[in-house]
Amino acid sequence: MEKDTNFNEWYNDIVEKAGLSDKRYPIKGMNVWTPYGWKIMRNIDEYIRRELDATGHDEVCFPLLIPETEFKKEKEHIKGFDSEVYWVTHAGLNELDVRLVVRPTSETAMYPMFSLWIRSHTDLPLKIYHLVNTFRYETKQTRSFIRVREIHFFESHTCHVTEEDAQKQVEEDFLILERLMKDLCIPYSLLTRTEWDKFPGAYYTVGLDTAMPNGRMLQIGSIHHYRTNFSIPYNITYEDADGEHMYVHQTTYGMSERLVGALIGVHGDDKGLVLPPPVAPIQAVIIPILSKGNIDAVTAAAKNVEKMLRDAGIRVKLDDRDERPGSKFFEWEIKGVPLRLEIGMKDIEKNVVTFVRRDNGGKGTVSLQDATDGVHLILRSIRKDMYDKAWEKQRSNVTTITSLDDLPEKTLRFGWCGSEECGHKFEDENDLKLLGTPYIPEEFDGKCIICGKPTDKVAYASRSM
Amino acid sequence: MEKDTNFNEWYNDIVEKAGLSDKRYPIKGMNVWTPYGWKIMRNIDEYIRRELDATGHDEVCFPLLIPETEFKKEKEHIKGFDSEVYWVTHAGLNELDVRLVVRPTSETAMYPMFSLWIRSHTDLPLKIYHLVNTFRYETKQTRSFIRVREIHFFESHTCHVTEEDAQKQVEEDFLILERLMKDLCIPYSLLTRTEWDKFPGAYYTVGLDTAMPNGRMLQIGSIHHYRTNFSIPYNITYEDADGEHMYVHQTTYGMSERLVGALIGVHGDDKGLVLPPPVAPIQAVIIPILSKGNIDAVTAAAKNVEKMLRDAGIRVKLDDRDERPGSKFFEWEIKGVPLRLEIGMKDIEKNVVTFVRRDNGGKGTVSLQDATDGVHLILRSIRKDMYDKAWEKQRSNVTTITSLDDLPEKTLRFGWCGSEECGHKFEDENDLKLLGTPYIPEEFDGKCIICGKPTDKVAYASRSM
Repeated sequence: MEKDTNFNEWYNDIVEKAGLSDKRYPIKGMNVWTPYGWKIMRNIDEYIRRELDATGHDEVCFPLLIPETEFKKEKEHIKGFDSEVYWVTHAGLNELDVRLVVRPTSETAMYPMFSLWIRSHTDLPLKIYHLVNTFRYETKQTRSFIRVREIHFFESHTCHVTEEDAQKQVEEDFLILERLMKDLCIPYSLLTRTEWDKFPGAYYTVGLDTAMPNGRMLQIGSIHHYRTNFSIPYNITYEDADGEHMYVHQTTYGMSERLVGALIGVHGDDKGLVLPPPVAPIQAVIIPILSKGNIDAVTAAAKNVEKMLRDAGIRVKLDDRDERPGSKFFEWEIKGVPLRLEIGMKDIEKNVVTFVRRDNGGKGTVSLQDATDGVHLILRSIRKDMYDKAWEKQRSNVTTITSLDDLPEKTLRFGWCGSEECGHKFEDENDLKLLGTPYIPEEFDGKCIICGKPTDKVAYASRSM
Repeated sequence: MEKDTNFNEWYNDIVEKAGLSDKRYPIKGMNVWTPYGWKIMRNIDEYIRRELDATGHDEVCFPLLIPETEFKKEKEHIKGFDSEVYWVTHAGLNELDVRLVVRPTSETAMYPMFSLWIRSHTDLPLKIYHLVNTFRYETKQTRSFIRVREIHFFESHTCHVTEEDAQKQVEEDFLILERLMKDLCIPYSLLTRTEWDKFPGAYYTVGLDTAMPNGRMLQIGSIHHYRTNFSIPYNITYEDADGEHMYVHQTTYGMSERLVGALIGVHGDDKGLVLPPPVAPIQAVIIPILSKGNIDAVTAAAKNVEKMLRDAGIRVKLDDRDERPGSKFFEWEIKGVPLRLEIGMKDIEKNVVTFVRRDNGGKGTVSLQDATDGVHLILRSIRKDMYDKAWEKQRSNVTTITSLDDLPEKTLRFGWCGSEECGHKFEDENDLKLLGTPYIPEEFDGKCIICGKPTDKVAYASRSM
């Protein structure tokens, strides 16, 4: 398994060997979450809940199916989705009067209810989210977690009195993102998408992109400001202090199971998956090193360490199967367990536990008595090092270019006058995707790489995943 | 709101006033889980996960959509479902070659995969579950949580070497059920369904029924033994120790959001919801009793108690809104918060907190210093009392009858010869549903209530919910 020379094959191989997902389900692109993969996703979901709950969002759950009549109220939105939604047309032996869309995203399910829920300015802000599966009829080649037809994701939806309040929500979303990505050790760029690539119906869209080892950017989520684009067709109004009816300003924020794809791509290596401790289903695996005459003593010591760590809230597994240690090492390396602990007779004599870090292969010992503190410390250090290393890679993946000859397989940064004409020309002639312009403006003084006009605007592009 | 005189109206009123669900979504029977209702459901889900994980089940997540070709492999199964499934026939602008069923239950999604996953007897038992939404095109009148078209539920699926092993799984399921129902304080009967009412494709079905205040039994879940009825059409085989290919024996166990309906119906009273402490989103609400001159002292004491309880893992809310205590009492009573704590100047002077139990109105005080222990103790006692009281009601709801004249609005127990003819006659002539025979046999010596033949078999029936 060579990650750098053949990323695509390596990726599929890891997904299968680490037991994350089974793509043999008889509908292409609808995969089965197998236990280990689903545990990772659920751990990520818990971090999402923690962050959204802490910032005053309420968790709800909206229905899966949306009547065509509701779905079609916002014109840009339906234009963006009608080629990729699934339609329920029959129920039992009857044809339905109104066809139902299988949720591709929940604006059109939620907003008719928002219009009932919101009456007065005192009902605002309304901040809710749900964690559900969403459905897109993908026609491109599918890939586990990255391009699938049933997508696990969260979406938060908010309503505000003014455009500025909605803008503040977007900024809160960036803080939520920052905290989440610290736990997942995933770096990202914030790029305001082009007008022709923004979310259908949005005022603006900020894409959250992370660099894959093949130099391409993977969109792991997005944050949208809708202004009143949806509240007008869905009639979501509040009565202000003067008794006037005003349209609410809305935002949304969503991230999907692509986060699992990002974990694999950003951190994995030729030996397999490398999981950040916060989301690893098993944070430390204990492997007893047995030889004749010491089986009982070593087993007892291993069980003791297991108990200490479990009691301290560490997700630990004692692998006491009757197999060679080497084959156990191999298996847990593929599954990306952050920390391996080995206990043999020599360790017991020295009153230590040997550890091996999955992220950098670093080896050492911690004292048996302080194993809990030692393991906590190492796990924290793994998280920090994985985060720093990933950001370092993300930054080094960006190359500023001044010419379109000999484009490297990286994320490209260049001057763009901002015109739609130059943008389309750039994409078409180079088979590249214009990812947009930095949300946090960058100083630039150069020329548009297409038309050559002087510009202080910079844009990013990469090949599509 | 009078529960006993008009259960149906009372039920709908509680659902709305307690903020459990919003049924104004523009598809009948597909309701929106609002924050408070969804929190209750998520708490129940966590108990389910705890029990299933502890008994060696792995959580997975299977796709929502099932190809018609897979769905139709087991003949009884499809006969039982084809009048009540939703069909996806189009995707984007295309008509699909193979129509897709929106999951009504996951046998036909899972079993093609089981046939790939299971190779040898060492792969058994296979025990998995998922927590998802399922879809039924209900034609009867819908009712929140009890009869809906999008149903939140869990289903566990197991595969075993022998019929006996599968039977042992059924018995483990009863233990899981017992523990779960202790936390939810929901009593139940185990009734083996009649041949014509068992799950389509099952060898036998045990219905889990709880009595509603109107005397009718609500099915809150079911446990099925499939023998090899599905493993044959889905070709799920293992190689035994002698190298022979044998079909696996299967079981399933499922319970749905009807558990929320049961919580409402079993425990609620004329003041509103009454929630068992294990699943209550808020276990204790603190209401400061303020009057002039003591605002700071009372507020500080209330905050102090809130912190103590929260640190001890109790789900506590301090309601310090600027409103009259009476209207706060009213609101938290509707929402069924198990314990109300009141702190006023008099309490502070006596160094106590006043408590009021939601389940029985019991009042008292706990010492301020030991508030945590005191609250823990009261919550445990509430759980136990709610459980005992609910079982008492469940038992008293059953009436043994020997004649079909003047049937009371209760669950009826009577002799049945066991013939299908008498069973159908009984159901048709009395507009009752034959719930089945007790899974744990009961001593009986009497006559079949229909044909009059002597029988030692007893059956149960009630009107449909």
